[in-house]
Amino acid sequence: MGLGSRFASIVESRGPLCVGIDPSTDSLRTVRLPDTAAGALEFGRAVVAVAATRVGIVKPQVAYFERFGSAGYGALELLIREAREAGLVVIADAKRGDIGSTMEGYASAWLGDGPLQSDALTVSPYQGFAALEPAFSLAEASGATVFVLSSTSNPDADNVQRASLAGEMLPVLVARFARERSGDTKTVGVVVGATRDLAARGLTVSNLDGLLILAPGFGAQGASLTDISHIFGAASPNVIPSVSRSVVYEGLANAATAIEEHLRELGL
Amino acid sequence: MGLGSRFASIVESRGPLCVGIDPSTDSLRTVRLPDTAAGALEFGRAVVAVAATRVGIVKPQVAYFERFGSAGYGALELLIREAREAGLVVIADAKRGDIGSTMEGYASAWLGDGPLQSDALTVSPYQGFAALEPAFSLAEASGATVFVLSSTSNPDADNVQRASLAGEMLPVLVARFARERSGDTKTVGVVVGATRDLAARGLTVSNLDGLLILAPGFGAQGASLTDISHIFGAASPNVIPSVSRSVVYEGLANAATAIEEHLRELGL
Repeated sequence: MGLGSRFASIVESRGPLCVGIDPSTDSLRTVRLPDTAAGALEFGRAVVAVAATRVGIVKPQVAYFERFGSAGYGALELLIREAREAGLVVIADAKRGDIGSTMEGYASAWLGDGPLQSDALTVSPYQGFAALEPAFSLAEASGATVFVLSSTSNPDADNVQRASLAGEMLPVLVARFARERSGDTKTVGVVVGATRDLAARGLTVSNLDGLLILAPGFGAQGASLTDISHIFGAASPNVIPSVSRSVVYEGLANAATAIEEHLRELGL
Repeated sequence: MGLGSRFASIVESRGPLCVGIDPSTDSLRTVRLPDTAAGALEFGRAVVAVAATRVGIVKPQVAYFERFGSAGYGALELLIREAREAGLVVIADAKRGDIGSTMEGYASAWLGDGPLQSDALTVSPYQGFAALEPAFSLAEASGATVFVLSSTSNPDADNVQRASLAGEMLPVLVARFARERSGDTKTVGVVVGATRDLAARGLTVSNLDGLLILAPGFGAQGASLTDISHIFGAASPNVIPSVSRSVVYEGLANAATAIEEHLRELGL
């Protein structure tokens, strides 16, 4: 049971907030854990323990585990399994993308029946939308969701994401493709950063209508959770806002308080 | 010592041919190895053993190891280390891409002093060129090379790679950025698939002049190695042609013969 098939019940019971698990060098230093795979695992377990009582979704950032090689992946496997056993939905933030049997490999890694199996995966569309099909197919079969990068929160993405084809910018083309491929399911969603004026990347609320939207860029990165309806308008009910650094900024002991504050901002 | 600082001497002593290490489900079946991390390692070791006597560069496809989780990464760590100890240059074909400290994590994973350290890394530019800077900086410090996806060999990439900004298609913008960032070093190169008419993606030979070009799409995928000068013209001396499936198509016992045939096609 992936994110797609569980989304409505998660929002009903826990609300849409997603807590990122980002054991970067800086975050580990902030919480006084070693910058090792074991430190990343301890960090992740602490975030999961707090998140499991308050939210429905967590998002480990794969890069922070991959930097420790197989040891980091061993930690991530344990963390994903423990989070799912605790009832949380796991979005693997991996931003993978390739073609053909290589894309099948990535889909299998994150959505197949293996040690890293997650409920959702982020992917990058530079090699074309159809090239990502192995991930969509596997997600469809398991009720999971694949979030395709549409408009990301960093301004320096403009030199790619403001490029256009037949008069439409790439973020709009990604959103249209996602909607067509997803249909009424929640198989394909989009990543749209919340710190950007959507219109600067060509997006309107109607482009996003009906799509699951993973929206990083809240909390420490800029936008406030109270801005969701302002930014996403009628598309807001399908927004999964993600917070990371703000949760651990004052240490793991204060993470529960930080999450409660974020839930208040969401009116929950 | 990465690829960038060693490129000239590799081409001098071994020629530019790159042998891919792609232990896909299909390839493992072809060579009658189990579809496991151990099978992928045995496959990779066999390719490295043959490659080390004849070519200078190998390119493991990370997805085929990642599908086995930490066990697959353990296999990949051994393989990368053994290939480098055998004198081969290793291009990690991972197509990573992200922003900020997350991109630092990926750069550290593949180009830093850890268990997956390689001589070059492929990256994907959807989040903008400047976002990839942590990889460029680390590559610059170690003489390594970062290959940015420019034009990939699959036709269905057209719905992204024919998008344009200020009248120029993305593959051209990637190539220009790479040249500006690389300068006279070999720090930043591009991936340009050899099966496509370059002009269809806006590229000319002068866009690619002076850049290291990783060119997949030879052998089983379509183009013949005898076509390099036809496809890349004056940019040919900096082309690293990559072959994968054609090397193992008739089994590992014939891989040496297949590589010899490819070297003959290159006139070596």
